Amino acid sequence: MKLGVVTEFDAAHLLPGYQGKCARLHGHTYQVEIVVQGEVGENGFVMDFYQLKKIIARSLEDLDHSYLNDILPNPTAETIAGWLSDRLNMDLAGTGVRLFSLKLWEGKNKWVMID
Amino acid sequence: MKLGVVTEFDAAHLLPGYQGKCARLHGHTYQVEIVVQGEVGENGFVMDFYQLKKIIARSLEDLDHSYLNDILPNPTAETIAGWLSDRLNMDLAGTGVRLFSLKLWEGKNKWVMID
Amino acid sequence: MKLGVVTEFDAAHLLPGYQGKCARLHGHTYQVEIVVQGEVGENGFVMDFYQLKKIIARSLEDLDHSYLNDILPNPTAETIAGWLSDRLNMDLAGTGVRLFSLKLWEGKNKWVMID
Repeated sequence: MKLGVVTEFDAAHLLPGYQGKCARLHGHTYQVEIVVQGEVGENGFVMDFYQLKKIIARSLEDLDHSYLNDILPNPTAETIAGWLSDRLNMDLAGTGVRLFSLKLWEGKNKWVMID
Repeated sequence: MKLGVVTEFDAAHLLPGYQGKCARLHGHTYQVEIVVQGEVGENGFVMDFYQLKKIIARSLEDLDHSYLNDILPNPTAETIAGWLSDRLNMDLAGTGVRLFSLKLWEGKNKWVMID
Repeated sequence: MKLGVVTEFDAAHLLPGYQGKCARLHGHTYQVEIVVQGEVGENGFVMDFYQLKKIIARSLEDLDHSYLNDILPNPTAETIAGWLSDRLNMDLAGTGVRLFSLKLWEGKNKWVMID
């Protein structure tokens, strides 16, 4: 079964060398949907949402209220999603669930997804 | 092709033996997304949405405005989704479409999915 | 990696021969989610969202503020999605990304998806 949690973080970034507005220092409220997959245990849970949200909050700690260019040289939605995916894979190791997909919205109506 | 319908139901529950707030009697407005799969017929429909919504409303009849512990001993989102999936599989039998996935939100930003 | 863009268009239609309200001339604000798939390039993009949105806007040009029956004899959500999918496949040819899925909402809580 799959479990999904939607949350968000706020960060500044700019895209160096981009021809257009994205080269200017700006920011977004990024929405993230994290989907994990696992088996339903005897307690009726794949994983307690409370625990899953704590893990996700820890994975997002470095990104939230940050200047993303301090973390990634070219913080496009694609490279941020890649970084977060690696981070979640580490933080979910040994928990009994695995990362199934990660969707990252930049603004309201556009997103990238790793699955 | 796939067809999706999003609807909701309101129910009370508690999780017996849970260490935390979920052990207290409380309730949710559960959102459900039901996705079915089938072929497009000569009438241009996989299935008339009107008919699909009627089937779904019937499947949800027992859950809506109920105390979920009367139906399931441990009504986590996972076990409710399992129950509803079985019910939809029965109610969709012989209609020409099959249940592809079922997503159940508990509150706004977290969900379980059977697919 | 996948990229998704959500947009909408407004159109009138009727379903000839339908037994019910859909046979009357009416209209919808159709929401569309277009998902494309491709590789992340050296510039950190699968495709610049700006470019993707321009392609999608062009594909939707004929549908937006139209009478759909001028384009399709029986404009159900299914046949409109099929038409738009063909159109997007043409307009995306040679861009380095391919159409992965297309979801079309008719109203708020029901949709069809081609994937």
